[in-house]
Formats: sequence, structure tokens, C-alpha cells
Amino acid sequence: MERADKDLAFMLQYENIAWFEDGAVRILDRRVYPREKRFVVCKTVEDVVQALRDMVTQSAGPYTAAGAGMALAAYSCRNDSADRQLAYMRQASEQIATARPTTANRMRLITRGALSAFETALNNGTDGVDAIMAYLIDANNMRYNKVYKMAQYLCGMIPSGGAVMTQCFGETIVGQMCRVLKEQGKENVRIFCPETRPYFQGARLTATVCHDMGMDVTVITDNMPAFVMSREGIDVFTSAADAICMDGHVINKVGTFQIAIAAKYHGIPYFVTGAPDLVHPSVKEVPIEMRDPDFVLQAMGVKTAEDGVKGYYPAFDVTPPHLVSGVVTDTGIYAPYDLARYFENGNMGEYEMVI
Amino acid sequence: MERADKDLAFMLQYENIAWFEDGAVRILDRRVYPREKRFVVCKTVEDVVQALRDMVTQSAGPYTAAGAGMALAAYSCRNDSADRQLAYMRQASEQIATARPTTANRMRLITRGALSAFETALNNGTDGVDAIMAYLIDANNMRYNKVYKMAQYLCGMIPSGGAVMTQCFGETIVGQMCRVLKEQGKENVRIFCPETRPYFQGARLTATVCHDMGMDVTVITDNMPAFVMSREGIDVFTSAADAICMDGHVINKVGTFQIAIAAKYHGIPYFVTGAPDLVHPSVKEVPIEMRDPDFVLQAMGVKTAEDGVKGYYPAFDVTPPHLVSGVVTDTGIYAPYDLARYFENGNMGEYEMVI
Repeated sequence: MERADKDLAFMLQYENIAWFEDGAVRILDRRVYPREKRFVVCKTVEDVVQALRDMVTQSAGPYTAAGAGMALAAYSCRNDSADRQLAYMRQASEQIATARPTTANRMRLITRGALSAFETALNNGTDGVDAIMAYLIDANNMRYNKVYKMAQYLCGMIPSGGAVMTQCFGETIVGQMCRVLKEQGKENVRIFCPETRPYFQGARLTATVCHDMGMDVTVITDNMPAFVMSREGIDVFTSAADAICMDGHVINKVGTFQIAIAAKYHGIPYFVTGAPDLVHPSVKEVPIEMRDPDFVLQAMGVKTAEDGVKGYYPAFDVTPPHLVSGVVTDTGIYAPYDLARYFENGNMGEYEMVI
Repeated sequence: MERADKDLAFMLQYENIAWFEDGAVRILDRRVYPREKRFVVCKTVEDVVQALRDMVTQSAGPYTAAGAGMALAAYSCRNDSADRQLAYMRQASEQIATARPTTANRMRLITRGALSAFETALNNGTDGVDAIMAYLIDANNMRYNKVYKMAQYLCGMIPSGGAVMTQCFGETIVGQMCRVLKEQGKENVRIFCPETRPYFQGARLTATVCHDMGMDVTVITDNMPAFVMSREGIDVFTSAADAICMDGHVINKVGTFQIAIAAKYHGIPYFVTGAPDLVHPSVKEVPIEMRDPDFVLQAMGVKTAEDGVKGYYPAFDVTPPHLVSGVVTDTGIYAPYDLARYFENGNMGEYEMVI
């Protein structure tokens, strides 16, 4: 399988590293990374769905895992009749896309893109698995190029000697931000990463990317952002998003809303990176995923609270547009109240972003 | 040693349980509680100082440990000449009081109170250890009674069927709040406890007290308070304080400031419990203790971040008076801009609180 593209190789270091090979999808288990580098091996579509539900990978990871899962589906049904293959692939597309309800719309874009590549291959009598993997590489490369442009706009807001606060992982954009800071000659930029309980994505993933990219990076607990803003001269708060609604509401890892409130209080701008989601005209259409409450009652696998105490685990929160200073896209920084303009120059937004 | 007082027995369940007995100070190790019930045994004054530095106990715990430490000091020097005993006790008082810089002024009140009880005993030819322990029991009982009154004012702000958010441990006031809610016939009150990283005092201690008192208690991670405020109808945010400065600034566990900002944003009042500190005329006199930064890079003993990533660990933060709705004391609720009035009716504030 060809995946030699320079940008792709660069980014895969910092990404999900979910891939289809030898009849299985291997997904880097980011629940234990970087302490351990372990892969979850999925031999069926159901395994992939379960891995997505179990949060084996996060941020942009699920999208690549979803594409790889479609390749696995094509591999699984390769000896069936064309009709059966098509029925199976359609079912797999829906199963994988709906593994996590909050991002189902966006996941469907990639599974349907894969399905479409498969159908073309089926009609042409070429290999369906190869077609899906070629599509996945193209989709990733297109995304990396867009995110690189996005990083250029974001880094334009960060001064030399400045300080940035992140939230959760942010995936591709974090690596590209570090890269572009160097390209723009921004020196001595400090990055503060809230650890992002209960999964510690900030401590385990974001900080690792920044450190591997040679940045000065500090992990703080999730109760420290306001203190750090008041004492350490933060210039920019930035996060990616699980969804940027057309009405300017940002859906992202729980905690984003709280940091955005603290940023507003301190007069620090909050820039969300990504593209507006045409599939989410307003925040009303976005369900907030409630996860297993018991997960909040442990940390790194060790129980923290007494039996009988309840937990509560919203995966995401909602940041209203008046707390968002700008939506940083591949074509510039837009006001959260003016997101329709992003599409005026032919951009397709998230459709194009993940396909 | 007599410690049969009903209130004292009630509260000691939920407290530090630091005590001097059989030539040693035993301090409940709240770093592992409630998972394990283990005591740190201190056989010298230096052991007590180290245990305070190592955060074996928190919140009101250190004050009882300090008093017990003074009893240990008296026990250690019991066979010396009166002059040497006095010199040793003065040195012990200062050593114990300064174990943790942020609270040195308040700790000094208790160690000097113990010193004074010791001096009286020395002059009267009675037992110095007994005198210090009697003083410590009186001091605790006086505090419990004051905190009980404080809880009555606090619970007056909490409606039946309402919801309260806490921060960090809050010690005595949390137990008294649960007790008074029942006395006032407030039904179905829910309590939300942020877990309070990096030590998890909220998850391990506050939630345990509330649960043991039969309350409906939910632990959330420190990035969830704003979300919970927006969705769960929080009526009151409350915390104790390490210091309430006379200018209305509140020094408390890091995170308090951030939750207070979120509470203001949501129109939820923030009530801090305690007494104004005459020893802190303004926030300028209070040093913010920076602790071992590596402690932030682990959770429950498991490493979270890659080697080379830095940590950052302010023990406390500062909440300005405009975010404080009221200072809840034993004589009523005061505006944070009007704290001198607390002393007009003969109150001695923290002096009396801990002595």
C-alpha cells in the first residue's frame, strides 16, 4: 500500500496511525500512549466499531480508522457476489459512522466516500480494498494540506516569545502549528497543555507532539488554566473542534467552554481551528454524548472515589459564539457570526475536509 | 486523653484524625484515603514537619497535626531543664508553623497557642503534654461550634431540591453543611464535587464525607464545572479558604478562581466560608506556594506525560472580591468589601477560629 507522501509520513507520526494491512485494521491504542505503544487489532467491522466506542483513538484518529474499517469490510466480503458485497458495504458504512453519536455526520462523510470509491472499483472490476486505501490517502493528504494552511493563519496570531494554551489533543493542527511556528521564525514560544481529564489527552498526546517537535511544553491540571492566564501571559487559547456549527457554536472536548470563559475574562482571544459544518446549521442538532459515568471515578486505571459516589461524564461541551474570537480555516480567520462566507469561494467545508 | 465531646467525635470522623498518643503523632494519610486507611507515624518534630510538607493531611488537618506536633515536642523534651524545654518548644513552634509557607501565619496561631498552654503548665508544675492536648480539644470544639453556625448561614442559601458545587475538601464545613441541610429539612439536595487534581481531594475526601452523610453526591473532573452549571441548575458554588484577606481576596486550592469565573458567567453566587484573616490585610502579603512540578505529571501514582515535558504546580490561586458573593462566617454573611465589620462585635476572626 503506497503511503509515501512526505506530509502524510510527517503527520502519521503524530496521528492515529490506524491502518489496514494483512486483513486487519491496526489502531494505535492512545488510551495508553505514550507510556506504552500498543495496537488494537481489529479483524471484523464489529471490532472496529467497538474500538471506536472504546475510545481507542480520538480526535482525527477515528476518521482514518473509519476509512481503514471500510477497507477491512471490503476485504471481508471480497468473495461474495457483487450484490451482497454492495449490501454489506452499505451496512458497514452506517455501522462505523454511527459508532459515536456526536460525530456521526462527519464520520458518515468518510465512510460514504470510501463506499463510493468501492462502488467505482466494483463497476470497473478493479480491487475494492486498494480503491478505498487510495481514497483514504488522498483524503488525508488533502486534509493535511488544508491544516497546514490553517496553521499558517493560527501562527500569525502567536507572537515570538509568546505563550499558547491548548485544549485536548487537536491532532494534526498541533503538529502543524509547531512546524509553522518554526517556519515563521517564531522563537521561544511556550505551550501550556491542560491535561484533559478523564483521558489525559492533553498530557499524553498534545504535550508529546509538542515536545517531539522541540517545543517548550508544560502540562497543567484542568483546574489551572485561569491561574496560568493570570500569571503567565497567555497570548492565545486555541482548540480544534468536534463540530463548528454554522451558528458559531463550538462543540469540543468538555472543558473547552470553561477555558473559553476564563480566556474572555482575561482578555485572551480564543481561536478554534477547523471548518464550519454545513451538516450542523445550529447547535440544536448536536447531541452531547454522555459516556460511562464510572470512568470519571478513576484516573489512569486507579479508583479515586468511594463506592456509592456517582460520576458524570459529558464527552463534549458547547462554547457559544460570543466566546469565540475567530474560526481559523484554510482560507483565513472568520468571525463566528459570519461562517456562511467561508463557503462563498467554493469551499466545501467539512465535506471536503475529511473526504 | 479525653476526647469524648460529641461534636468532636462527630467531626473527627471526617477530619484529619491527627493525634498525639503513646509518644507519637499519628496522622491519617489522606493521600491514599479512602482507598486505604493508613497512618503516618511521626516520632520527632522533624517527622511532623516533613509530613506537613508531604501533604499527608490537608485543609484543617494540618492545624490539628500542628497542635499534636507541639504535644510531641513537649513529650520529647520532658526530661530537660525548664530553660531547655522552653527553648526547644519555641523552636518547635516556629519549625512546625513554617512547614508550609502559604499558611504559616495561621499555623503559627495554633503552635503559639500550644506554646502558651505549655508555658502555663511549666510555671504551674503540671504536665505540659496534657496541657497542650487540652488546649487542642478546646480549640477544635470552639472551631466546630463556629463552623456549625457558619453552616446554618450557608444552608440558608441552598434551596430544597437544589444543587451545590464544592471545590477541594472544605473539611469541617462540608460535614456540617450536610448535617444542617437535614436539620433545616432541605430535601433532595445534590452535591457536585470537582475531583481537585492533582491530589483528588474532591473525589477522595469531599465526596466521601457527603456520601457518608447520606447525600446525593456526584464527582466531576475539573474541566466540567462550567458544563454542569449550564446543564444541571447549580444554585450555589461554595468553598472554604486557606486565607480570606481583609481586602476580600480569597486564597484557596487552585481551581477556585476558575470555578468562580464560571459561576459569575452563569449568574451563580459564590460563597466562601471562613473568617477574614486580620494577618492578611491585603492579597499582596500572601505568597502563592509553588510545589513540585512533577507531581502534575502523574495521577494516582501513574505517569501521564512523556519525559521532557514540564509540569507546573501552584498550590493555590487568588479569587478577587468581585467574584465573591459573600463571606459566610459564624456571625452572618458579609460582603467581601466589608470585612472589617466582622470584627466590630468583638469577633477575633481567625485568631479565635483556630486557637
